[in-house]
Amino acid sequence: MAGILHRTLRLRTALSALSSTATARPSHVDLCSPVLLTSSWQFRACCRKLHAGADGPKQSPAAAPERLPFSRVTEEDLNFFRKILQARTITDPDLLESSNVDWLKSVRGSSEVLLRPQTTEEVSQILSYCNNRNLAVNTQGGNTGLVGGSVPVYDEIILSTALMNNILSFDSISGILTCQAGCVLENLSLYLEERDYIMPLDLGAKGSCHIGGNVATNAGGLRLLRYGSLHGTVLGVEVVLADGRVLDCLATLRKDNTGYDLKQLFIGSEGTLGVITAVSVLCPRKPKSVNVVFLGCETFEQLLKTFQLCRGMLGEILSAYEFLDSECMRLLNTHLKLPNPISDCPFYVVIETSGSDPTHDGEKLHNFLEEAMTSSLVTDGTVATEDSKIKALWSMRERVTEALTHDGFTYKYDISLPVERIYQLVTDMREHLGDRAKSVVGYGHVGDGNLHLNITSPAKDPALLAAIEPFVYEWTAGCQGSISAEHGLGLKKRNYIYYSKPSQAVTLMGNIKAMLDPKGILNPYKTLPDNLK
Amino acid sequence: MAGILHRTLRLRTALSALSSTATARPSHVDLCSPVLLTSSWQFRACCRKLHAGADGPKQSPAAAPERLPFSRVTEEDLNFFRKILQARTITDPDLLESSNVDWLKSVRGSSEVLLRPQTTEEVSQILSYCNNRNLAVNTQGGNTGLVGGSVPVYDEIILSTALMNNILSFDSISGILTCQAGCVLENLSLYLEERDYIMPLDLGAKGSCHIGGNVATNAGGLRLLRYGSLHGTVLGVEVVLADGRVLDCLATLRKDNTGYDLKQLFIGSEGTLGVITAVSVLCPRKPKSVNVVFLGCETFEQLLKTFQLCRGMLGEILSAYEFLDSECMRLLNTHLKLPNPISDCPFYVVIETSGSDPTHDGEKLHNFLEEAMTSSLVTDGTVATEDSKIKALWSMRERVTEALTHDGFTYKYDISLPVERIYQLVTDMREHLGDRAKSVVGYGHVGDGNLHLNITSPAKDPALLAAIEPFVYEWTAGCQGSISAEHGLGLKKRNYIYYSKPSQAVTLMGNIKAMLDPKGILNPYKTLPDNLK
Repeated sequence: MAGILHRTLRLRTALSALSSTATARPSHVDLCSPVLLTSSWQFRACCRKLHAGADGPKQSPAAAPERLPFSRVTEEDLNFFRKILQARTITDPDLLESSNVDWLKSVRGSSEVLLRPQTTEEVSQILSYCNNRNLAVNTQGGNTGLVGGSVPVYDEIILSTALMNNILSFDSISGILTCQAGCVLENLSLYLEERDYIMPLDLGAKGSCHIGGNVATNAGGLRLLRYGSLHGTVLGVEVVLADGRVLDCLATLRKDNTGYDLKQLFIGSEGTLGVITAVSVLCPRKPKSVNVVFLGCETFEQLLKTFQLCRGMLGEILSAYEFLDSECMRLLNTHLKLPNPISDCPFYVVIETSGSDPTHDGEKLHNFLEEAMTSSLVTDGTVATEDSKIKALWSMRERVTEALTHDGFTYKYDISLPVERIYQLVTDMREHLGDRAKSVVGYGHVGDGNLHLNITSPAKDPALLAAIEPFVYEWTAGCQGSISAEHGLGLKKRNYIYYSKPSQAVTLMGNIKAMLDPKGILNPYKTLPDNLK
Repeated sequence: MAGILHRTLRLRTALSALSSTATARPSHVDLCSPVLLTSSWQFRACCRKLHAGADGPKQSPAAAPERLPFSRVTEEDLNFFRKILQARTITDPDLLESSNVDWLKSVRGSSEVLLRPQTTEEVSQILSYCNNRNLAVNTQGGNTGLVGGSVPVYDEIILSTALMNNILSFDSISGILTCQAGCVLENLSLYLEERDYIMPLDLGAKGSCHIGGNVATNAGGLRLLRYGSLHGTVLGVEVVLADGRVLDCLATLRKDNTGYDLKQLFIGSEGTLGVITAVSVLCPRKPKSVNVVFLGCETFEQLLKTFQLCRGMLGEILSAYEFLDSECMRLLNTHLKLPNPISDCPFYVVIETSGSDPTHDGEKLHNFLEEAMTSSLVTDGTVATEDSKIKALWSMRERVTEALTHDGFTYKYDISLPVERIYQLVTDMREHLGDRAKSVVGYGHVGDGNLHLNITSPAKDPALLAAIEPFVYEWTAGCQGSISAEHGLGLKKRNYIYYSKPSQAVTLMGNIKAMLDPKGILNPYKTLPDNLK
């Protein structure tokens, strides 16, 4: 044990040099041309073919379909919106610019109007009008999505939740928070921390993303291992339906079995079934003790064995088990100048514990680390208990996305797999692509079986894309995995749904969409595949 | 601290006399006449009136509506079923008896055929046939429901899941169990415990209830406080739709954001949207250390303060916080001869801890008890760490339902409320009823804000019922509570849905029902109110 403590001490000292800069949006990213990635990629999903019989070059299933016959916004429409929202009806192209482009700068819409309602009643009036006028609407939260779901594809009206940012109530006995959809996640976290609670979810994008967007996309993030998904922690939603009707399911009860649990339909429906205007969330108590460990492993097998050991020995205090590979570390070093807090290893793990007794947690962690070191599962490591060091260690995991944007054009995949298979996909992809890719990196949430596979190239490269897809989707489908673990389908992945869902299920999704939004005005071209429309 | 340890020791010794008999179905319960409770009860829900304008004696909203015009089972139908299921087509009235009556003996159907399929394919063939023939179907699991949802109302065909009891797979790395719907909860628990895992739910009815029924009714139970609801822990379901189509959403992934989360629709829909034939469940690791404490409090306010203290001091190891009042204790003593393990108090609490380190858990519990005793929040208590004693203490909570059935005809209410209000309803009801009731008792899941309010009388008593309802529902609606926290609506509570859900939501539920089961053959007369049909 002396060995590990000595090393830990040495490494803690080294760690203090680490910056604790919070994640920020990158300032340099490649801007791709309006509406997406096209290639000769052929869609070979098992269930259905999108463009059967076509002999010419095929369009990527990720590309936008043709504009649907929605009405175009007229001056009369604008006058109506101005009557409701006054100056919160935005038509200045400069002000619209950032709302028309996703943060990866991979999808660009051409909306000419951005509406910023403050109340549910305003949202209701807007949708009722748009539905009557057959005007398409793109609801936008913090615009931090990664699949092109949060921006217009053509000229859809952008309905921003940014000004719906009031906390409506917080019950300090039950820990139930009720707030408007536009509250920024980080603001909610700060509000709760002052009251000895935390949000049940945490994301790299917390400084920008809205809770309404989190719920609409069923965001996963870093605390899912401990607190479960939003399907369990969201207790209620208020939703405005496509025709303007307000559906009040904003319960603040832990248990309620009176009829079908309608709120579940809207969690993860990406704004295609209704506009979430408020949510109630069950929040956990703020842990009295948080520790973060950064470890190195020689093989992915050892990393998995460490996970099993850690689940057994840390038990109920384990709150995150995240990993990155040495390629991620190289990009963090190169592009963000973040030094490796431990010696070089093929794999790195970030483990977080959250508990109610610092002494007990420390003992559990100590015993686990001793066992992991003496059994040679991990080769090096460092522990952080202070806030700034915890943040610094977390940034090694959270800033990988940012480092990637500096490496070149990035092809991003968010894959759910049986946990023992997750790194095999990275290895197979590397072998498959050879030197056609600049970097092939893997990181993600081991505890949830969720791999983020990212491939970069100096510039957009249709030939590379054709080598990646459908290889990545077929590989995933072969393991009964999910081609979108937490990012959703949005515009980019909508047509790949059949790799993870049987056609019966997709048909039923189409029926639900038709029932709730018969004119299809809500976030068109997203989530559901083109052949359903 | 010496005081409490001394008392604890004394009481532990006394406790050893306690029987650890598992919960069993009562052998003597009043049998009420076919199809339910009628009274002059007047339905005064805020939103809608069921029988507006009628001047004569009104029928209770709990009573069965008229039989809908489904076909009646013919000899030809029976021949079809026999061709598929052979001897698993049951028509002997003696064998059908127990399937026609719920276990409270409060609802009796008159079905003449019980089908016992073994495979999803058989269920599919049955439903496809029934849908074509317009034959109504009542799916039945362990028939342990409390709201008349699990038995036929008229002559619906009973589709039992009893022979669909195979475990399909268990992944010991991820803890994901996949099994057929008819597996008995206790059998699954035993299977998992041998593999160092547990089910995320536990109920008094575990010896009889089926996992498919648990999922179909979104069962809550004793572990919800720790592991959350089935909306979070159920990862996949396989469902046969009304027309026989098989919907395969039997994923075994912790995360999957590809399209709408359809499985959620079926969780808690009480067999009205489809027949669940298989489920996959995320199971927690078996805790290495379990302790149970039985405490007494002078007031409900102290009981709540003890809950707050316990959440803070036991933190992540708290796995249950249940309560019963002195009236429950009287019934346990009188009818089941269970002695009080501590001195007489107005309120009793059962606290369970589950953790990964016996020493740490013991220390946390010790510190909590010391604080609770020295601050006079609790007046007496006893601790159990051995299995048999743990079971004995738990039986004080789990067997209240059984004790009630010996006390007389029981009117049962399962109410969700803000936690600080839950006992006020019992007090107000006692005052409201005066000496008209034999016993008015309160127990339940404090940690979830879930009160079980039970009122007994020597025999069925329409006048008493008229005094209880709508008082209980109006009181609950006044606190934005739920009139069914975990039992569901079934037949008995279907028309009370408007006390907890707005009409917009109920209308949407009706649309979903019409979409998935256009002929309404699945579990008719249940869950949704009559005015939707």
